Amino acid sequence: MTTTNGHTNGDPSATLPQWKVLARKHREHQASLIPAEWRLKSVPSPTDEKSAIPIIEQHLSSTELEITSLSQTLPALQSAVRSRKYTAHQVTSAFCHRAALLQQTTQCLTEILFSSALATAESQDAHLEKTGDFIGPLHGIPVSVKDNQDIKDVDSTLGWVGLINHPAKADTPLVETLRSLGAILYCKTNIPQSMMMSDSYNHTYGQSVNSLNRNLISGGSSGGEAALIGGGGSLIGIGTDIGGSVRIPATLQGLYGLLPSVGRVGNRESIRRDKYVVPGVAGPLSRSLDDLEQFLDIYLNQGRPWELDPAVYPIPWRKEVVAHYATKQRMKVAYITDDGVIRCQPPVERAVRETISTFEQGGHEVVDWNDIAKRLHGCAYDLWLRAVLADGGERMKVFCAQIGEPLIEGMLVGKPENHLDTNGRMALFDEIWEFQREYMKMWRESGVDVLVMPTTQWVGLRPKMWVKADMYVGYTSIWNMMNWTALTVPGVTVSKELDRPSQEWTEYKGRSFSDEFNHDGYDVDFVEGMPVGVQLVTGRMGEEKAVGIAKLLEMLKRQ
Amino acid sequence: MTTTNGHTNGDPSATLPQWKVLARKHREHQASLIPAEWRLKSVPSPTDEKSAIPIIEQHLSSTELEITSLSQTLPALQSAVRSRKYTAHQVTSAFCHRAALLQQTTQCLTEILFSSALATAESQDAHLEKTGDFIGPLHGIPVSVKDNQDIKDVDSTLGWVGLINHPAKADTPLVETLRSLGAILYCKTNIPQSMMMSDSYNHTYGQSVNSLNRNLISGGSSGGEAALIGGGGSLIGIGTDIGGSVRIPATLQGLYGLLPSVGRVGNRESIRRDKYVVPGVAGPLSRSLDDLEQFLDIYLNQGRPWELDPAVYPIPWRKEVVAHYATKQRMKVAYITDDGVIRCQPPVERAVRETISTFEQGGHEVVDWNDIAKRLHGCAYDLWLRAVLADGGERMKVFCAQIGEPLIEGMLVGKPENHLDTNGRMALFDEIWEFQREYMKMWRESGVDVLVMPTTQWVGLRPKMWVKADMYVGYTSIWNMMNWTALTVPGVTVSKELDRPSQEWTEYKGRSFSDEFNHDGYDVDFVEGMPVGVQLVTGRMGEEKAVGIAKLLEMLKRQ
Repeated sequence: MTTTNGHTNGDPSATLPQWKVLARKHREHQASLIPAEWRLKSVPSPTDEKSAIPIIEQHLSSTELEITSLSQTLPALQSAVRSRKYTAHQVTSAFCHRAALLQQTTQCLTEILFSSALATAESQDAHLEKTGDFIGPLHGIPVSVKDNQDIKDVDSTLGWVGLINHPAKADTPLVETLRSLGAILYCKTNIPQSMMMSDSYNHTYGQSVNSLNRNLISGGSSGGEAALIGGGGSLIGIGTDIGGSVRIPATLQGLYGLLPSVGRVGNRESIRRDKYVVPGVAGPLSRSLDDLEQFLDIYLNQGRPWELDPAVYPIPWRKEVVAHYATKQRMKVAYITDDGVIRCQPPVERAVRETISTFEQGGHEVVDWNDIAKRLHGCAYDLWLRAVLADGGERMKVFCAQIGEPLIEGMLVGKPENHLDTNGRMALFDEIWEFQREYMKMWRESGVDVLVMPTTQWVGLRPKMWVKADMYVGYTSIWNMMNWTALTVPGVTVSKELDRPSQEWTEYKGRSFSDEFNHDGYDVDFVEGMPVGVQLVTGRMGEEKAVGIAKLLEMLKRQ
Repeated sequence: MTTTNGHTNGDPSATLPQWKVLARKHREHQASLIPAEWRLKSVPSPTDEKSAIPIIEQHLSSTELEITSLSQTLPALQSAVRSRKYTAHQVTSAFCHRAALLQQTTQCLTEILFSSALATAESQDAHLEKTGDFIGPLHGIPVSVKDNQDIKDVDSTLGWVGLINHPAKADTPLVETLRSLGAILYCKTNIPQSMMMSDSYNHTYGQSVNSLNRNLISGGSSGGEAALIGGGGSLIGIGTDIGGSVRIPATLQGLYGLLPSVGRVGNRESIRRDKYVVPGVAGPLSRSLDDLEQFLDIYLNQGRPWELDPAVYPIPWRKEVVAHYATKQRMKVAYITDDGVIRCQPPVERAVRETISTFEQGGHEVVDWNDIAKRLHGCAYDLWLRAVLADGGERMKVFCAQIGEPLIEGMLVGKPENHLDTNGRMALFDEIWEFQREYMKMWRESGVDVLVMPTTQWVGLRPKMWVKADMYVGYTSIWNMMNWTALTVPGVTVSKELDRPSQEWTEYKGRSFSDEFNHDGYDVDFVEGMPVGVQLVTGRMGEEKAVGIAKLLEMLKRQ
């Protein structure tokens, strides 16, 4: 989809630095890929209308609204396609339209592939017409992917201006598997420069905001993905997570977001033995648990990605494990509300307490792990931080140097003093290994089935505040370092009544700059109505267990 | 087991370099750990008696001979312990005695732990006496481990003189799991300096030789382990393999040797994200397939190592997969006899051809993959070599510098010009990734179930010749790079009649120095009677599949 647009020849704004010119041209090109009839004449300001949803829904036809409804699910849409209620083209067009409107209201997209997506949908319809066969279980279903998934002939800039007009030579294996299952690739989603902050902003594609409240961010680094799914522009999307990059955006948009262990969902970075001491993994985001479960089942059991993807292990989606935990009678449930580093804002603590209370009322045993967290989780964050900074920022320098683009201040990027040579990396690995061993021993001895804890300590942030806060991601990053599964699930929504700061909260003195920033930044009026999730942590390769326990939790909530 | 022996104070040989003095002292200390009654007054030269077995067997009692017989198996010995035919002490003592004799004839050991092993056995017997309970399924069963497995309070020198008297602070998780299953740790086994050659020789513990023919080496880097098991001094041992280090020694001693994919058998190195671009893994060696299968079943299904070992994935030993392949009616079997880089010596080629013929006669389809090998396996070796040399020899320099010990010439150690920085390592990883993708695609399209190929191109080498040969390990190293399972199984034994060089062989001109060396070094009279194995390659996490197919092969051979 990349064209030769974006060159600087003859540009009138030659006084601007080249990278700014190129970024602007690429954004103009991006805008041009939205069909004229889908363009909004004006967009209300976030002050006039916080949520993107009412803005966009008035521009959708009734069929488009039906197809892309926020209560739509993957199994239901598959059935509708299979029963020929909708054609692949209808479904694809509806999601492209909704994504186009969300792009104009939240800047959630990077590469726009509507034209090729609609062509694929048409050819799927023709194939079905001619043969009577569906392409696969995801025939006609649009699936969105974060910008770091390579799609052949499409840019994978990761937001770097210097990578504009460098289309990928091949699909990633994940994209290849999605295509083989019939899924339609129609867009890539926005991320932060470097992918090392939880605010999706870069010089090429601009600032993504939250589709539920456009005064707020949708986090990062899979922030565009979360805004798109949260706004109904996608049912299932693929993000990546090295410290919280799937789970934090998911919680901010009221979604499910899975951090799998390495080897379940294809991602080259997860098996790199050369860059980060801690692995980054790919994981899905969705609005419903059914969608997440259905996707993993199809991807693993029908996609058999391990046959072509060196980063996926040959382990099917183990439905019997899901069923076992979904019906478990008496589990031991540990919980953390405060890891001792950064205190969570009141709605976050409430989300954990209400979840725990649901388990308790369902007859499960509940154990307080706050002391354990205070002893171990801060150390975990130090180890994680050293691991992700260990290249001393070398990679980022290369990206910046390509075109003289500046680094965005405040994001998590190594400085020369953080650089570790081979021996330093080996020593750090050994420290992480010892930490993993200690945590595993403690977990085994405890007999705990699942740990419930905050996904992130904050509820809502304005754009560009995250980087100012020297923000802590220790509630999520520990599970990357452990290479354990963590699933964030929706918990509560912020309520003025229930989450009004107590006197004790008001008088609280922060433990550090970041803790104070987080404390002082809490404004219940500003974040009212925003979703707050909790993490379910289920150990190494605990993907099926996490989904099973989440199902159990939902069943208990309904009781 | 480490004492304060080995200090240089007051040593008369003060003119020798310190590392030589320390190495000698440690060897003297090692010898002192063999009880006086187990010491041999004299050892016949290899010219007088090639094999260690007749030498040692005359010194064993009838019970010891029965316990340590070359036809002994792990399931049989477990039954004998469980039925109280033998005590743990009897079994342990017999294996310690046999290992002591093999040490004196082949130098297969590093650390000798007989005293603590016998004490553990006694306490196991007392526990059984008192409670009626066995410690675990490996109650009273001695298990040997390569020197790189840490055992608490025991040296892990890896042969480096500078690491003498630096006892390990803790057991590796694998050792911990073995202990929890009741296994008795009684010795560690010899390796080459650096572990990067296939001849187990170092300045601390000297030269291991083959227990079947002491004129020949038992390979490396798990060479001591293979000599010990091949000579009956152990039933099951744990080696490690980054390029052939389990499989090459196994084939030279007529054993089974498994290269698992990362995550099946605990090994910290296998999940390091900091050192080698190619993972080294741990794998068992044994004299029988039953032993190998039984061990993996017990280790995974009863040991549940993933609960405490960050390097093991929670995947049980899948008996149903073993059974499926052990009874498979019609498989597609590919084979390679020559990968186009180094031509295999005649008995090696015959081992592959006879295996293939067995499959063919059993009704399986056979396909020639020599052209595929010629196209892909040479490239694979180049990639692997760049990966293992990528630290530019930095680690080895550190080890040498500790005490001024020289590096052994000719082994596979990086030079400064091989060093890769982070970007270089990332680029190499990407090349390896592309290679993996291509091979996986080709494998899937072929519909092949198993690939049969040589384990190594040579049959027997005299000590220290391997390093002179600039020896190729491409027949094994490709599977480390793919992170695929490869099981070496015994094939044929060298026969003067069947393996006499043909005129065509005699006139063959080598493709390279290494090829010529390998060709010219073939001397059927010298290697007569030596075992030659073949590899069964079964894809990612194909451990159960490999064992199943090996069982099928043995069944077909018996028909």
